[in-house]
Amino acid sequence: MLKDLIIKNRSYRRFYQEKSISTAVLEELVDLARNSPCGANKQNLRFFLSADNEKNSIINKCIFWAGYYTDWDGPEDGEKPSAYIVIVKDTSAGSGMAQDEGIAAQSILLGAVEKGMGGCIIANINRKDLKQLLALEEKYEIALVLAIGYPKEKVVIEELKQDNDIKYWRDEKQIHHVPKRKLDDLILN
Amino acid sequence: MLKDLIIKNRSYRRFYQEKSISTAVLEELVDLARNSPCGANKQNLRFFLSADNEKNSIINKCIFWAGYYTDWDGPEDGEKPSAYIVIVKDTSAGSGMAQDEGIAAQSILLGAVEKGMGGCIIANINRKDLKQLLALEEKYEIALVLAIGYPKEKVVIEELKQDNDIKYWRDEKQIHHVPKRKLDDLILN
Repeated sequence: MLKDLIIKNRSYRRFYQEKSISTAVLEELVDLARNSPCGANKQNLRFFLSADNEKNSIINKCIFWAGYYTDWDGPEDGEKPSAYIVIVKDTSAGSGMAQDEGIAAQSILLGAVEKGMGGCIIANINRKDLKQLLALEEKYEIALVLAIGYPKEKVVIEELKQDNDIKYWRDEKQIHHVPKRKLDDLILN
Repeated sequence: MLKDLIIKNRSYRRFYQEKSISTAVLEELVDLARNSPCGANKQNLRFFLSADNEKNSIINKCIFWAGYYTDWDGPEDGEKPSAYIVIVKDTSAGSGMAQDEGIAAQSILLGAVEKGMGGCIIANINRKDLKQLLALEEKYEIALVLAIGYPKEKVVIEELKQDNDIKYWRDEKQIHHVPKRKLDDLILN
């Protein structure tokens, strides 16, 4: 059931870093994005794959994790993602819609979950440095970074409290809690 | 397999209009979007459901189909979608990312495909008129319209030709062809 995949597809930020992921697997995930819809069929998204220590550590340096955790600057060594897929826009292929990036990211992460992995969409990126460090041509613009690995943390969805505070939080057992609005509160009619 | 769902999830634009869809089913689909990730967990998307002739015909009037088909202004009577989900931003709940809209749309459409339905993401919308006709409060901004129904048309993916023309096209049997770039052409490294 798709719903099981969607529920399992939480934003994971701590991983079993020792479990490697092959670029062949990353290619299978990109193929899911390739077969997903995009505005006016422009297909202007491109994908930079990283599944080795060297490239991963470059990407690690240019991304910022979990904005609400002011006392945590990302996964420590041993718990970092085993792979990344950097979603890039090819500006020479026409202006795509930002929604396309979300569609591609969701397809890729659902695919990762189906394979027993999990990940996180990261939008807080030092795009200038990352573009330079990955030696991307001028025409490419970095859109999103997807961190992918074998999740080491437990993430639970819970109902949004009356104070309407949507900030996720970690408890003393390092369980990550995500308050979600109720279905009734999302439907306008 | 997720891949089967993703391949089946084409943009459908002609439907068996006589097959109705209940709002309960639309709510199940919205619940998939509710459990999907969004930037900083802001959850600022809301959903207007339409599954009756009156609301459907209002939405019909405010959307524009298949920009590349200059001689076709959308499905004719009998082939229109049985339902719509209008994705709306609640601007009072913080500025979300446009990517969130894509994530939600993809979750909803994959869910529709799993239930034997299919649909189309429509971004070409007369948003001003639609907002007024649906009597949406000032704080709501229309993002996307998802058409949903039981697909009546065949859609095939094919390889992009050497002329790199990404425009979809219909043949004399009304089969809709969608040229897609090759996987190798999407991967930068």
